[in-house]
Amino acid sequence: MYQMKCTKCGGLAVVNMPQHRLKLCEEHFLEWFPEQVVNIIRRYDMFAPDDRVLVAVSGGKDSLALWYVLDRLGYETEGMYINLGIDHDDYSNRSQEHVEAFAAEHGLEYQVVNVAETYGRGVPALISTTRGHRMCAACGLVKRHIMNRIAYEGDYAAIATGHNCDDEAAVLMQNVLHWQTGYLRRQAPVLPQVHPRLARKVKPLCRIYERDVAAYALVRGIDYIQQECPYSKKAQTLFYKEILNQIERRSPATKQQFYITYLKAKDEGLFAEGEEEGRVYHTCPRCGQPTLADDLCAFCKLWENL
Amino acid sequence: MYQMKCTKCGGLAVVNMPQHRLKLCEEHFLEWFPEQVVNIIRRYDMFAPDDRVLVAVSGGKDSLALWYVLDRLGYETEGMYINLGIDHDDYSNRSQEHVEAFAAEHGLEYQVVNVAETYGRGVPALISTTRGHRMCAACGLVKRHIMNRIAYEGDYAAIATGHNCDDEAAVLMQNVLHWQTGYLRRQAPVLPQVHPRLARKVKPLCRIYERDVAAYALVRGIDYIQQECPYSKKAQTLFYKEILNQIERRSPATKQQFYITYLKAKDEGLFAEGEEEGRVYHTCPRCGQPTLADDLCAFCKLWENL
Repeated sequence: MYQMKCTKCGGLAVVNMPQHRLKLCEEHFLEWFPEQVVNIIRRYDMFAPDDRVLVAVSGGKDSLALWYVLDRLGYETEGMYINLGIDHDDYSNRSQEHVEAFAAEHGLEYQVVNVAETYGRGVPALISTTRGHRMCAACGLVKRHIMNRIAYEGDYAAIATGHNCDDEAAVLMQNVLHWQTGYLRRQAPVLPQVHPRLARKVKPLCRIYERDVAAYALVRGIDYIQQECPYSKKAQTLFYKEILNQIERRSPATKQQFYITYLKAKDEGLFAEGEEEGRVYHTCPRCGQPTLADDLCAFCKLWENL
Repeated sequence: MYQMKCTKCGGLAVVNMPQHRLKLCEEHFLEWFPEQVVNIIRRYDMFAPDDRVLVAVSGGKDSLALWYVLDRLGYETEGMYINLGIDHDDYSNRSQEHVEAFAAEHGLEYQVVNVAETYGRGVPALISTTRGHRMCAACGLVKRHIMNRIAYEGDYAAIATGHNCDDEAAVLMQNVLHWQTGYLRRQAPVLPQVHPRLARKVKPLCRIYERDVAAYALVRGIDYIQQECPYSKKAQTLFYKEILNQIERRSPATKQQFYITYLKAKDEGLFAEGEEEGRVYHTCPRCGQPTLADDLCAFCKLWENL
């Protein structure tokens, strides 16, 4: 059988990354991966070395690998797990156990927000009663609200999420196929803080391929939850990831170029200013978070409607 | 076996167009197709009913179907066939025969520009001697130059080409994957006349699926050349057409939405003005066509370098 050689030392390579023209042995891959993350953090000016970073962890490979590598790089992190109350297959509790076991093993601090305990009901209970809201939209809304609240209360410099290059490219592809101009103007490795109570959001894995994040989690022995959310409409995203991987197999590096060149074109002024630019936030009278609505914010309305 | 019913009359349908939620029998399809072309011509203000239109014909299904339907709709057309001198499989001459037979059958006027007779060499002879120019790029250059010349000499209102929706969507996909910002700003059903010697170019089939153009050619008994150009790098375009068709099979109409929503977003100002906008043309001292170069235009340079 053909054995791959490490580009750096000639030893036995365990990962092949044609998009970087690199094959790496375990040792050099473990060196390479955190270097990439540091480069991404610096390139997009995500946060400074002494900033406190809140890491949004789901128990999956991407967010746990992110937390691991940020900690290893010396950043001051705290994990945040949002228990959404998804009891199908005991999904939320089992995910939480993965987060807790990981934190215990590595001596990391974290907090858990249990949606049902804090707000009275879990996310699945929100859905049957809210017309027009679909599960993933409601869940996204709930998670954003809680992330912003926790980051504000804890005065964190940024919230880091585990989105990888495949995630970003798949979203970009969907936005491009339907020319979602608002999203096309906004998608970025950093969402800046535009209001004191809307946290800065950063994606330190955004240029790393999903396969390579998975390889890192594997080699580092990270025990993550492999199941997808039972409500998730992952099928759509998986389909576009597979489309992009077909293109990638034909022309290696197209996936990252698609995303990176987009960011570059955007920075260089491809898009004209949209209507979003000048919008004015009001303060939600119930939760105090900013909203574009005149009255309650979308999060508070969600609970109002029960 | 399941038989499709015509959406209009309930008769036996011969084409199924999920993107329009239409199944049509032969009679209604033959009615529907020219209507679509008229709608496209009007929607994008391509040319007026009494304009003289030069139809660039290759001998393939798209351009012959276009010529056929424009003539049938009462437009004053003249065909233009450019014989590129591709003698592999006698490709150029055989294509010309298809054009001539078609014109004779339908009593249509046309002219032929034979590149080797007019300029001394066929396109393939240009390639071995011009460094950095690849065949398709040189061929495109030659065709554009000749089209502009003939349209100018004959004072045509526009040059019509047979690009269908699949062609346009595949090009758009490639431009988006590499964020070719210049092309993204320009791609359109109509390229306006920005200089007296650069013809207006229009694509009256740009919203019609390739499969439906082929069906029209088939039902109308149009005898076209099925072989692709032996030099053509069609593989690339075919790959992206197949990618788009995969997406289309999953979500019918995505292919046309991708293209049409792009045009809409562009019209509504998605893209900021590019550097191209204010560029100044010089006149090529040899051929008289406008060029951005200071000296000879790219076409004349091509021959210069032999």
